[in-house]
Formats: sequence, C-alpha cells, structure tokens
Amino acid sequence: MTHPEIRQLLAPDPRRKILLLVLDGLGGLPDPATGRTELESAKIPNLDRLAREASGGRMQTIDHGVTPGSGPAHLALFGYHPYEVEIGRGVLEALGSGFELAPGDLAARANYATLDAEGVVRDRRAGRPTDQENRRLCDKLQSGIRDLAGGVEVFLLPGKEHRFTVVFRQKSASGSVAGELDPHLDDTDPQREGELPVDVRPGRPQANRSAAVVQEFLDAARQILRDEKAASGVLLRGFSGPIELTSFNECYGVRAGAIAAYPMYRGVARLVGMEVLGEPASFEEELELLESRYEDYDFFFIHFKATDSAGHSGDFAAKVRELETVDSNIPRLEALNPEVFVVTGDHSTPCVHKEHSWHPVPTIIRSPLSLPQPDAKFTERSLMHGDLGTFPAVQLMPLALAHASRLKKFGA
Amino acid sequence: MTHPEIRQLLAPDPRRKILLLVLDGLGGLPDPATGRTELESAKIPNLDRLAREASGGRMQTIDHGVTPGSGPAHLALFGYHPYEVEIGRGVLEALGSGFELAPGDLAARANYATLDAEGVVRDRRAGRPTDQENRRLCDKLQSGIRDLAGGVEVFLLPGKEHRFTVVFRQKSASGSVAGELDPHLDDTDPQREGELPVDVRPGRPQANRSAAVVQEFLDAARQILRDEKAASGVLLRGFSGPIELTSFNECYGVRAGAIAAYPMYRGVARLVGMEVLGEPASFEEELELLESRYEDYDFFFIHFKATDSAGHSGDFAAKVRELETVDSNIPRLEALNPEVFVVTGDHSTPCVHKEHSWHPVPTIIRSPLSLPQPDAKFTERSLMHGDLGTFPAVQLMPLALAHASRLKKFGA
Repeated sequence: MTHPEIRQLLAPDPRRKILLLVLDGLGGLPDPATGRTELESAKIPNLDRLAREASGGRMQTIDHGVTPGSGPAHLALFGYHPYEVEIGRGVLEALGSGFELAPGDLAARANYATLDAEGVVRDRRAGRPTDQENRRLCDKLQSGIRDLAGGVEVFLLPGKEHRFTVVFRQKSASGSVAGELDPHLDDTDPQREGELPVDVRPGRPQANRSAAVVQEFLDAARQILRDEKAASGVLLRGFSGPIELTSFNECYGVRAGAIAAYPMYRGVARLVGMEVLGEPASFEEELELLESRYEDYDFFFIHFKATDSAGHSGDFAAKVRELETVDSNIPRLEALNPEVFVVTGDHSTPCVHKEHSWHPVPTIIRSPLSLPQPDAKFTERSLMHGDLGTFPAVQLMPLALAHASRLKKFGA
Repeated sequence: MTHPEIRQLLAPDPRRKILLLVLDGLGGLPDPATGRTELESAKIPNLDRLAREASGGRMQTIDHGVTPGSGPAHLALFGYHPYEVEIGRGVLEALGSGFELAPGDLAARANYATLDAEGVVRDRRAGRPTDQENRRLCDKLQSGIRDLAGGVEVFLLPGKEHRFTVVFRQKSASGSVAGELDPHLDDTDPQREGELPVDVRPGRPQANRSAAVVQEFLDAARQILRDEKAASGVLLRGFSGPIELTSFNECYGVRAGAIAAYPMYRGVARLVGMEVLGEPASFEEELELLESRYEDYDFFFIHFKATDSAGHSGDFAAKVRELETVDSNIPRLEALNPEVFVVTGDHSTPCVHKEHSWHPVPTIIRSPLSLPQPDAKFTERSLMHGDLGTFPAVQLMPLALAHASRLKKFGA
C-alpha cells in the first residue's frame, strides 16, 4: 500500500496507541561453538511470551540480499522505501546533530584525517581523537572559516571521535537562504590510506559551483590545520541536500513521538516529521521519557542501540546481555498498556559478521487482533514460521495500524 | 501474472473442470475462552482430509493490513486487483439486484431515511423497514418518477430493509441509451444523524449535468414521500458507472458459471462476465443448481454466505455450525469429480472482531497435481505452513488453472 492509499483508509476516530520498539541490529547468526544465535542464547522470557501472544514473522528491510545502512533501514521501517526516497548520509548526520537544515543546503559527512607533507592520507581517522578534541578542532576550523566566497555560510557540527558534519548554505545579499548548492559531488575520502584525497568532482554541470565552494573550504581547512599533528586534513563524503516528504503523521494519521539516545536516529525521525522528545542519555532515560510523555502522543518510536554496537564489536556475550536488558524492561513497556506493541529491529548485525547484514529481522505485533502462536519464541528461526511470514519493512506501518483498528475497510 | 500473460499460456484443449467454493468471511481468531479459532473448534473431517490431500496455504486478498470489503475481495479472488480495477458500490449493488447496466448509466446506493420538517436527518435507516415495505416505497417512488428532464430514465431497485439502488439512464430521442452521466458526485448521506443531507456536489465540471439530474430526483422523491412517517427522504452514496473489463472467460479460457444465493455476489460475478445461474435461496439450492448444470460449464464459483453473517454477529457457535454444514456437504461436491477443487474465502470475519479483517484466508487447491500435506488441517494456523505459503488473491486463478493442466509452459 502506498502512502496516498493508506491515507484514504485512515479511520476517522483513531485513539489507540502504537508502541514501536526498535532493537538496532536485532537479528543474528549462530555462535559456531553452540549453534545458537544471540536471541537463541539469551534468557528472554518476556519477549518469548510476547511472541506466543502476538502475530509474528520476519521483516525484510530493503530487498533480498540487501544489507541496509542505518538511515535507509529506519526510513523503510517508517514506510519510506529507500529505493524511492534517497537521503544522503550528510543530511542524516546533520539532522542527527540537531541542526535545522534549510532547503538548498549542502551537507557532508566529514572525518579528521592525518595527511603527510605531500598530502597523502596516513590515517583516515586522525588517530581517533576524543570527542573533546573533536570539538576543539571544529571550533578552530569554525573561527577560521565562517563564510566562503559568494555568500556561502559554513556550519561545523562536531560528532564522535574523528567524525563531524559540514553544512554549506548559500545566502542572498540580505542574509536569507538564497539558492541551491547542488549535492551531486563525489566523495573526497579515498577510502584507504597511502593515497591522496580525491579531488572534489561535480557529478553533473549544475554542481560545478558547489564543487568550487567545497574545494575552497578544503583548502582553507588545510591551512588552518597545518600545525595539527594528527588532524591535519579533512575528508568528505555523502554530499546531500534535504528532500521533501509527506510527513509520518500525515501518512498514518498519528501524532508520533520519537525517543532515541543517539542523534542519528533522532535525525531520521525528525526528517520524516516525528516530534523528537528530548535527548535521553540511556535506555533508562528513554523509558522515563516515554512514561512521562505517554499521554501526549499516540505513536511512539523507541530506539535501543546497544544490540547493534555489540554486534559490530563481535561481542556475542555482550549482545546476549543487551537482549536480556531489553527483556527485563518489557513489562515496564507493557504496563503502559498500548493497544499495539511492535518489537522489531532495523536490520541484523550478527556478532560473527561484525557488520550489518541482509538477514530478515524477527518481528512481533501484539494486539487483541493478533493470531497467537503457542509454540513461538522470539528468535530468528522460530519467527520464520510466524503468521506474518517474511514481509517488507514498508508494510510494517499498515500492519500496525490495522492491528490498532486505525484503518477502515477497503470498499464496502 | 497479469491477464495478458495468462492468456498467452492458456492450453488449447481445456476440458478439466474447476470448482471454486468461497466461504465468505472464512478466517477467524481464537475464542479467548478456549484459545481456538472457529475452524479449530469445528468438527470438519472432510475439509481436514482435503487439506491433507491438497496443496494449501493462505491467501492475502488485497494487501498487508488491508481489510477488504465484499466487492473488492471478490474482484481480487477473480484476479482483478482492486487497486487497478475500481468499481463503485452503486454499480455492484445494481448488478447484485440483477439489473442490466448499460454503458453511461449512473448508479447509486440509496437509503430510505427519516427527515424532519426542516429536512434534518433523524434516522439514517428510516426505522429499518421490512423488505416488503421497502418494495412498497420503491413502487410508490417509481410510479411518481419515471423520467426526469432531458430524457433521463430512473430505475428503482428495492433491497433489504432500508436499502435500495437507483440507476439513472440518459436516453436519446429515439429511446436508445444516449450519453454518459458522469459519476463523479459526492455522497449526499451525511453519515450521521442530526445533520442535513449533503447537497449533490459534482466532483468535476463534467458531472454538472448528472448533479442536476440527481438533485431533480431527490426533490421529486421528497415530494412523493412527504406523507411517509418513517421513510420521508432518500440518502445517496457510492455514485458510479460501469467499467470495461476483459471478461473472466476470456482471461482464463473457461466457461464460468456463478452460483450464489445473495444478489451482491451474483452482481460481482456478472460484472466480470460469468454466467449467473438462477437465484438459489439456500446453500442446498445452490448445490442442486450446481449438480443440474454441471455439464454446461467448466468453471464454477459457488458462494457460501452464512460464515460471514455469523462472524458479523459475533456468534462463535453459529460460525462453527455453519462450517460444519459446509463440511458435511463436501462429499457431495467431491462426487462431481472436478479436476480441481478450491476451497477458500474472500476475507476473514473473526467472531471476536465482528467485522471483516485483513488476516490471510485459509486456502486449499486439491487436484492430482497437488503436493499433499500429511499433517495439515483446514485451519488458519495449520495452513500457514502449507506449500502455497501466503500468496496474493490475484494469483489464485493462475494456480487453479495450473492445477487443472490448463496452462502451457512458459517458454519452450
């Protein structure tokens, strides 16, 4: 179902609440030592019980064999298929940093990197500076570069370790946002050490001006950073500009609140038009926020990051532990008594793989209209046999709305 | 597979018969007291045996989370996806009443309603008159309004209780059907009591004339009904005109006969070009009709209504009983020895929900080319694991044709 089709079916008096708990990188693969996946190894009695009471299945985030990045994965979960809605990483990062992008802005992910005297990249991550050091470097750059030729303003948004975000904004003579900086630029990051940064290349003639703007920034940055031992240069990638979307609230007839400890996920939620609630520092703070704001919204997106981080580290025991942490908090979420409680992930991050993967993600939808599965467990191999089958992520929202009796029937 | 693709594969010498038994509102959900669905509670040894002998699965009528109305559900079953083939309820009702629509006709669903002296709707259903009273009212209206200005003929088709259908037809001077009455009109039914009926509003300039025609009808009806205590007015909705379809027989290379006790289902069958056999008053009469006309057709659609009605009433025991009634008649259908015997539904109507729902519908296809499922039962949770998986309703006909050896192979 497309968004216009869904909008035509929205029930006139929706009140029932939907809770969407996303466990990042949820799906896994067996530990060779035991033959059991992370979920199969964890003691998760509450999630297992939910799986028995709920309709269940597996969600394919993007496509067969396609490993999703975090941004596209969440867009798909929210019903915006990334084949149709292309959003650059720069934009996602800028949004995730809480920066308010304007139409025509150009955003890019940036790394501090170590360049040698010849400009060759010696360390793509500049020895992984601390976040504090990152802020110092961004302040230094920002005080040296505020405006570029032709009325272009530059914003530097510090991130974690060596990562930051750059936003370029074309202003008019009066200071208002004036024109578009075409984002069709190739990455300057050579992706390996021992090579020169790649020149800023426009992907089409309209991007000639933004290529010149970015080159001017890079040259200035090299000058300003020339005395830095580690962070002597900047690499850019994921050039992109904001896009227009029909908002999540309008698509689904909900008032959606997003709760996430990591800026990136707040950014995606804000991009689709959810209201972002605070900046909780932990899952505990996320839950407190949910409880205190529960009456204000009828849809909540709650993001849990630690499962993905453990997957990336390849730390099987840690991922099991994080799953158990979530499980122990399930009764707290149930106590809010949502009409529909969805537990899923944005993609798999198997510990044996240490990366995101394409494997479909265990998913349950618990409501009074679920078809219970008396033998189910909350695992990859059990939910494979669930009544929801393996379904595309963009169908999760219609399914959740249906289970909340928030969709009218199609035709009389 | 689309209809043109199917037509290219039709075998040149089709003789094998297909029986499609549709149990309306078949799928259910567990009774909270027992944890068993209607199908899981019923004693249905014949259907269970068929499930073991057949290929089985579940059919998703329209889309994930989409609850189908009766008309769209049957169109989908017959292979016409309702996202592509939009048919108004007025047309479906007119066809269901056995009225032969002509191109350019304008049809609308109508309710008798109680309007007060100021014209405010006091009862949208006019106190639910008897069918006999409905016929009296339609006769009264019809004798007062036969022709409207500009050569428009009006047909009044009585229905159940307060429901009837109006068809408007533009005639030429010679009396033949002349022109199109554009159906882009908004409903006049305000959908709630205490409000005035909505004025007839054209949805586009081409519909100005049909709006005037309908307004003239409504004014005349108000005059004729002015002395009626209950049925003092008329509300209209679902304005629509007939559409062009490639006929079922042409799409699938069959000669199809439709057997249904309810007019609505005869209407949909006629719309897609099936021949409608008689007007049986019961399932028993449907079966007699099937037996007596069995040699005349090579595809039969047989509709069983009572499962849906019991679901709408929320009467679990009644739905179980109706399933058992069908089951006891299965040997009688098998005795006809069809090459392919399909048992399915158009959608789910769980008793706990009292409404149609989106849950996929148990489906079996029994032929000598089925893959038997020795452990299967004819239930929602057993057929979830069937060899047909969960498939879209528009793929039912290609599957049925294949099982009847009525499709050639694709490529040499």
